Amino acid sequence: MRILDRIDSPRALKRLSAAQSEQLCKEIRELIINITAANGGHLASSLGAVELTVALHSVFDAPKDKIIWDVGHQAYAHKILTGRRDNFATLRTKGGVAPFPRRAESDFDAFGAGHASTSVSAALGFALARDLNGEKHNVVAVIGDGALTGGEAFEALNNAGGMKKKLIVVLNDNEMSIAKNVGALSGYLNKLHIAFQYGQAKRDAVELIKNIPKFGGKALKTAAEIKDGAKSLISIGGLFEQLGFKTIGPIDGHNLELLKEVFADAKKMAEPVLIHVHTKKGKGYRPAQNAPEVFHGVGKFDAATGKLAPKSNIKTYTAVFGETLAELAEKDENIVAITAAMPGGTGLKLFAEKFPNRFFDVGIAEEHALTMAAALAAAGKKPVAAIYSTFAQRAYDQIIHDVCLQNLPVVIALDRAGIVGEDGPTHHGVFDLSYLRHIPNMNILAPKDENELRQMLAAAFEKSLPTAIRYPRGAGLGVAIEEISPLDWGKAEVLRQGDYVSLLAVGSMTQLALKAADILAERGIDAEVVNVRFVKPLDEECLRRVAQKKLVVTIEENVLAGGFGSAAAEFFADANLRVPLLRFGVPDKFIEHGAKGELLELCGLTAENIAALTEEKYKHE
Amino acid sequence: MRILDRIDSPRALKRLSAAQSEQLCKEIRELIINITAANGGHLASSLGAVELTVALHSVFDAPKDKIIWDVGHQAYAHKILTGRRDNFATLRTKGGVAPFPRRAESDFDAFGAGHASTSVSAALGFALARDLNGEKHNVVAVIGDGALTGGEAFEALNNAGGMKKKLIVVLNDNEMSIAKNVGALSGYLNKLHIAFQYGQAKRDAVELIKNIPKFGGKALKTAAEIKDGAKSLISIGGLFEQLGFKTIGPIDGHNLELLKEVFADAKKMAEPVLIHVHTKKGKGYRPAQNAPEVFHGVGKFDAATGKLAPKSNIKTYTAVFGETLAELAEKDENIVAITAAMPGGTGLKLFAEKFPNRFFDVGIAEEHALTMAAALAAAGKKPVAAIYSTFAQRAYDQIIHDVCLQNLPVVIALDRAGIVGEDGPTHHGVFDLSYLRHIPNMNILAPKDENELRQMLAAAFEKSLPTAIRYPRGAGLGVAIEEISPLDWGKAEVLRQGDYVSLLAVGSMTQLALKAADILAERGIDAEVVNVRFVKPLDEECLRRVAQKKLVVTIEENVLAGGFGSAAAEFFADANLRVPLLRFGVPDKFIEHGAKGELLELCGLTAENIAALTEEKYKHE
Repeated sequence: MRILDRIDSPRALKRLSAAQSEQLCKEIRELIINITAANGGHLASSLGAVELTVALHSVFDAPKDKIIWDVGHQAYAHKILTGRRDNFATLRTKGGVAPFPRRAESDFDAFGAGHASTSVSAALGFALARDLNGEKHNVVAVIGDGALTGGEAFEALNNAGGMKKKLIVVLNDNEMSIAKNVGALSGYLNKLHIAFQYGQAKRDAVELIKNIPKFGGKALKTAAEIKDGAKSLISIGGLFEQLGFKTIGPIDGHNLELLKEVFADAKKMAEPVLIHVHTKKGKGYRPAQNAPEVFHGVGKFDAATGKLAPKSNIKTYTAVFGETLAELAEKDENIVAITAAMPGGTGLKLFAEKFPNRFFDVGIAEEHALTMAAALAAAGKKPVAAIYSTFAQRAYDQIIHDVCLQNLPVVIALDRAGIVGEDGPTHHGVFDLSYLRHIPNMNILAPKDENELRQMLAAAFEKSLPTAIRYPRGAGLGVAIEEISPLDWGKAEVLRQGDYVSLLAVGSMTQLALKAADILAERGIDAEVVNVRFVKPLDEECLRRVAQKKLVVTIEENVLAGGFGSAAAEFFADANLRVPLLRFGVPDKFIEHGAKGELLELCGLTAENIAALTEEKYKHE
Repeated sequence: MRILDRIDSPRALKRLSAAQSEQLCKEIRELIINITAANGGHLASSLGAVELTVALHSVFDAPKDKIIWDVGHQAYAHKILTGRRDNFATLRTKGGVAPFPRRAESDFDAFGAGHASTSVSAALGFALARDLNGEKHNVVAVIGDGALTGGEAFEALNNAGGMKKKLIVVLNDNEMSIAKNVGALSGYLNKLHIAFQYGQAKRDAVELIKNIPKFGGKALKTAAEIKDGAKSLISIGGLFEQLGFKTIGPIDGHNLELLKEVFADAKKMAEPVLIHVHTKKGKGYRPAQNAPEVFHGVGKFDAATGKLAPKSNIKTYTAVFGETLAELAEKDENIVAITAAMPGGTGLKLFAEKFPNRFFDVGIAEEHALTMAAALAAAGKKPVAAIYSTFAQRAYDQIIHDVCLQNLPVVIALDRAGIVGEDGPTHHGVFDLSYLRHIPNMNILAPKDENELRQMLAAAFEKSLPTAIRYPRGAGLGVAIEEISPLDWGKAEVLRQGDYVSLLAVGSMTQLALKAADILAERGIDAEVVNVRFVKPLDEECLRRVAQKKLVVTIEENVLAGGFGSAAAEFFADANLRVPLLRFGVPDKFIEHGAKGELLELCGLTAENIAALTEEKYKHE
């Protein structure tokens, strides 16, 4: 029997010997590797945090003590130890264990996560509530060095350090966010690592003394004294102390007993303390340790070899975007590219290799990314900020003020627009049409396929206006890549003629619309299919024309409120065109995790459903 | 003739003697005080930055050198010195000088502003473009210590410090944002001020030596040596050095010659440098110096005495909100309140005095504010985050993830919703209905008057759901304050019966709708007036009912795209109710500064216009 099988709650951890705890960590890693190999998931970060998690749950008493995971992609061990071991095999599947901490899933998940840099804010909220209630429990935020570059984390550290509330921040420093970390902070933390070598040597000496029973007993009388001695050796001041935190570390994040000792000390402190823990992303699994960026968020793979399951041969939109940008940049030296810590995920690696001077990774800092992009544009450059749709939510205000109010030609490449699948509600890009459409001066484009993405990118640079291009996660249609041809700005494209009904499809939904039209044709309903292309500006000429049909149908991978169908409803109302309108899109609720196909079905976004409801409405008109 | 009258461009500053420069500062202050007294404006910050501005424009060569003002409320002297002296009397009036830097207004305004903490991001963008272009000019960001608490500033410092580009950040430290600054950073900067006393003493000694011609000449041979000596005495490392910046200061921000000297030195440095300048908010005008918070953003006042022009006797919504919250908090100890550096502006001062332990000023940190509010709610508290509508844009992502996805009962009190007037496009709160309406689980309320605001606040706490209440800037209707009575959640209110037309008005627009109905009645058109109250959830029963009228009219102080009229259009389309719909709201363009009435008129939001267009459309149906 595994030790893990005896751990039904974190309380059971307190009874384990050091050796048993080490064994447990191995077993947890095995489970994480096996399930992630089968389901895909955030492997490398979770492997790096196993000892950290075991130590936290050994020392603290969750759920009374609040443990808050930043981003939450490192929380698999936490889930396994807090009641989700037996259904961990359902990880990331529909109805199964969620990809990130989720309050609705467990009392042990004190606060949900998904986007970076919120944990210290949440921890401070819990700490303030505790003190107001006269309670005594601990509040612990676990934040990576990557997430620390996000401004909200700084806002929270500044606030917490100033308030002097009892609060523990564990800085899980693995020198990476998803890619290698950038920025001054990263250099600063690195210096601490070097200092640590020195501290470690001294600490080893103390350990040595402590372990010589007689002599040690005389030299340092109490365990407390020994610990104090060790701590003073490894404590380093600096940045975080200036922000009002006591600082311990850096310490080895894979040394379980040391972690427990330090956490136990931190528990006794009545003020904000930051424990700087040094971990290795992918620890304990060689393939992940060697390629932590690949195994950050990974699809299925062979657990024994680490060989990734073969991917579709069809290029992703991400790849096509990256290649097209590099192609355009070859001819136009003013094109520059910005990523917020995701050179790989956004497809910018090729650009970065070819044009290192024109490529800027700003860290997990979407607000800064968009303002900086606007300034680059103001200085005559042609910046493209490549950001996942969901992460661009962080820069909503900067898009309004810095980009659109100043009418500056920033191209925002919104990757992962629409339903993303297994990463769930924090990662679906289903709001962008709604949060961008109401901003004056903004242009919003969505390509039907890879070639149109290429055209749109070229057209956006040429047009020189604030422009967002949104495209989905994963493989394109697999069309042959063509030379970039001109795109008629603001014009929709009729893909299929049809007399009675017009299906207006946005980007990723165009293929569905064509299939729905096929089904409708079989049922004797002649449906036109229009590739909308421009959600803003609206192609008003097109809308006036389709308003003559018996029924207009809009299809979009975006929430129905405020999206393209909403724009159509507004336009028809304002123009006094009273055509029946049927709108397909994401309903007004958060869509959980699951396979993309399952979730689209849940939203009614299937050709069959579109055809069926269109037929029904058509027959009633 | 004033010296100021000879300064037609910053170049002219270089020819002034020290005494003339001092005189110029006096004249600039006089002009700022006189115009602000007449027009209202951001007085205290601008007075504090006069020497700083004169020194910057003496040393740097704008517009080739880029000077970027954070927030921009301190930029009056900059405007006066860069071509806007003669029409400075038009400050903040429609068509006149803009309240903040504005690219369209002057080449000297390198980058627009309005919200805090963007200047370093913008400066880095300009610096990167300069280096790519092989240009040599300087880029200077001027940021207050308040704005420095905003996370985006930290993101940018981290990025800039890591990149080591030539870049100058002037930290204009007056120990305040609008109110007294909070957070650990503020404590840190304060320690530097104390250290500065010591440095100042030594510097004075150097000055002394320098000024003894013979002896000084021997002791310190060159001017450069003297400066180096002075600099090494006043240079203090710490926080910013760890972020990769060379640091100079703190220095006296009202010592013109010292500022020039330091700026000239900074100009020569090839790496990021932060100059810590200590200024006094309101400097040179005793009333503002004594009450900098009052004179931060101020209405008209008497320049000679500093006596504020009498305000309306009618209480503002802000005041009613603050009093009601304190009243409710008296009976419910779980109510806590959060502000992002605006205890005065949001009306929370009374609450803060009565319940200091339950009041949290988090600094200019809206992202952190909303996440922390969500955590307080998760811990059983009843948090209200009082934020201006336009500033809450910064927390859009946190409202989605931390509040709504977790369905936590945070009350967001959105003050200054709608057109705010003289503060212009960066401050109008005209997007909130659109950026909140598409978020699942969100509830959005807008009161027609002060008593309804009271009811809504009480109902929101009782209902315990994510709720935003939006209300306008300035005076309420002046209705007698009543005991809080229950509010029927999700239900609109019919204020006036009418057979043919239904006017659906949101919050601040209810009075306009009643007036429009009066006008329509005179013209023989019987119009119902509905106080919408709930933009989300929609009162579907009400909408179904009004769809039976000959015409439905929606009126809102929000952009038309995605707002309440959009929701109505969506609902009518989805429910197959083909009633003619006429929508009034803010058009799809940025609304400039001016008197609120003028701007509402520009948007067509007057009773006369609503009546006229309603009549026209009604007659055509």
